Amino acid sequence: MPETLTYRVDDLKDYVSRFFTALNVPEIDAHIAADVLVSADLRGINSHGVIRLHSYYGSRLLDGRIDPASPIKVLNESPATLALDGGNGLGQVVGYRAMSRCIEMADQAGLAVTTVRNSNHYGIAGYYAMMALPEDMIGISLTNSQPLVAPTYGLPAVLGTNPIAVAMPAGEERPFVLDMATSIVSIGRIAVHDKSGQPIPEGWGINARGELTQNPAEVLHGGALLPLGGPAELRGYKGYGLSLLVDLLSGVLSGAAFGSQVGHPSHPHNADVGHFFAVLKIENFRPIDFFKADMDAYIRTLKATPKLPGQDRIYIHGEKEFEKAEKYQAEGVPLLSEIVAALVEAGKTAGVPFNLKPVR
Amino acid sequence: MPETLTYRVDDLKDYVSRFFTALNVPEIDAHIAADVLVSADLRGINSHGVIRLHSYYGSRLLDGRIDPASPIKVLNESPATLALDGGNGLGQVVGYRAMSRCIEMADQAGLAVTTVRNSNHYGIAGYYAMMALPEDMIGISLTNSQPLVAPTYGLPAVLGTNPIAVAMPAGEERPFVLDMATSIVSIGRIAVHDKSGQPIPEGWGINARGELTQNPAEVLHGGALLPLGGPAELRGYKGYGLSLLVDLLSGVLSGAAFGSQVGHPSHPHNADVGHFFAVLKIENFRPIDFFKADMDAYIRTLKATPKLPGQDRIYIHGEKEFEKAEKYQAEGVPLLSEIVAALVEAGKTAGVPFNLKPVR
Repeated sequence: MPETLTYRVDDLKDYVSRFFTALNVPEIDAHIAADVLVSADLRGINSHGVIRLHSYYGSRLLDGRIDPASPIKVLNESPATLALDGGNGLGQVVGYRAMSRCIEMADQAGLAVTTVRNSNHYGIAGYYAMMALPEDMIGISLTNSQPLVAPTYGLPAVLGTNPIAVAMPAGEERPFVLDMATSIVSIGRIAVHDKSGQPIPEGWGINARGELTQNPAEVLHGGALLPLGGPAELRGYKGYGLSLLVDLLSGVLSGAAFGSQVGHPSHPHNADVGHFFAVLKIENFRPIDFFKADMDAYIRTLKATPKLPGQDRIYIHGEKEFEKAEKYQAEGVPLLSEIVAALVEAGKTAGVPFNLKPVR
Repeated sequence: MPETLTYRVDDLKDYVSRFFTALNVPEIDAHIAADVLVSADLRGINSHGVIRLHSYYGSRLLDGRIDPASPIKVLNESPATLALDGGNGLGQVVGYRAMSRCIEMADQAGLAVTTVRNSNHYGIAGYYAMMALPEDMIGISLTNSQPLVAPTYGLPAVLGTNPIAVAMPAGEERPFVLDMATSIVSIGRIAVHDKSGQPIPEGWGINARGELTQNPAEVLHGGALLPLGGPAELRGYKGYGLSLLVDLLSGVLSGAAFGSQVGHPSHPHNADVGHFFAVLKIENFRPIDFFKADMDAYIRTLKATPKLPGQDRIYIHGEKEFEKAEKYQAEGVPLLSEIVAALVEAGKTAGVPFNLKPVR
């Protein structure tokens, strides 16, 4: 059996869309959710892509822990601010609609913020931030998530990996797309090391006694991830502060769950995830052409910076993902056999057999 | 000679105010600048306080590199957005006025953003973020700064230590005030180690060959600070991304200098520093009492989290600084003798003798 199978991106989107439709998600919403999920794989972020189709989404739709209708309600509204209740809908659908409204508002008001409570895991934060790019706007997308990260000097995990995503358009260069967990690495990265029997670098996580460990199993069982920066000496409390900030804006400002109350997708109760979206219309601050010219100049300066020995390239955030997306769009999206197995399993549960023909 | 001398906070503000007034800063602006500068010392952040009175501000006012009138101009304006030219004024005055306008706009529009170009070093970023607290708003303050930080895989330094400051009110608990450089540590921290002959922890900086070094002199001379996270393995490219993000919002969006073009306060030309301020009115998203109750609950949960061995306290961001400010407000602000010497020297240059009587 090959290590990976490669599928056309449109085939994958079509399959995921059919999957969601079969679980009573309205067709237009199913398309949205499929686009968000497959975009993660397209950009090489498989941990947030179709591998989670059943575990994070399908299983919850099947037993009523996610409402397939995503009945979003407006809680509070003004020309530049919007507070939404996601109606315990699919995070991707709720996130997409919230960001779409935010972009519309920013087009009129010059900037806008939308908060969301009562949502679910929404996939890659960067997807929503990037929705602002074609409008020549700056997009910001934050979400809280289930507790996996310990605060500096503490254990257990009470904070999520709470990502920060910001997308800013450039001119001839590719956009800047920062999409980062506020922990050093994701729990998925630890699991990969655990599975392959590889030790993890010191600093990524702590064991149940709060000690730095290189044994991934110790992090997974009773330990915790460390926030960006790692131990206090290397200023891990800044990463802790960023994680907390994301939760205060996504969870507390929206009125969603926060801290250790944010539900894990595999848990029985409503997740009550909170999101925060912001959009800035660049033209309200300076002419877009000047802005883009400076973005290009900055990116070129960074790329022309002398390299450390052994390095031949300085990357701009999002660049690697754009390159993957271009390649995979043309050649197909490679999926590890375990991901394909997860799709086959998901298909059985939902009664939508995964029968796509790989291109290789 | 004692290690520190302690002064009443009002005496210090009065002195700094007289200092600026003597350098042709209008009296009301001099009070603003004094309040910002002394607030840094009051909060225990001496690196950004009166020690820089001459080197960053007085010397530039004296030879015309900062315009004492701070002639701010509006470049672009809408109900929720404002783009300003700081007129090469004092960063503290420009920052204070820009944030004041941002708060006024947010009170009407529910949120607002103000960008600033053509400004100067504005002291602690947190001061401006905290201005939103009495209004029950969330304050955000970003600024770019002179190049000190290397991008991941590169050298020399092309990025600033570009801080992120966010202030959010709580109820009975103290506010959350994150005020962090996006580098692991400031250059001042490296200088302190260099002066005292102490090695720095591995990870803080690299030498001229791009190698991690524990010799602070090597970082200062031809080396660079590393962004939060440190080396690539510990995800220093996230800190690099945060530093770049702050510069894109502060420098590029405002039309200020960016990257290696941002002027060091000791350099002859205009610094053309850029700032970014944002304010969110909490009531536009949820009732302020609910918000504050959740802030309190979150803070208490974090503080009640079990501690690692040898630790007896988990801190919330800003907490240490609030404690210092309360103590120093009552007992006086302790200044190291080298800071007092800097004040004496500044006073001579400006013709305003530093003659404050220490309380001890």
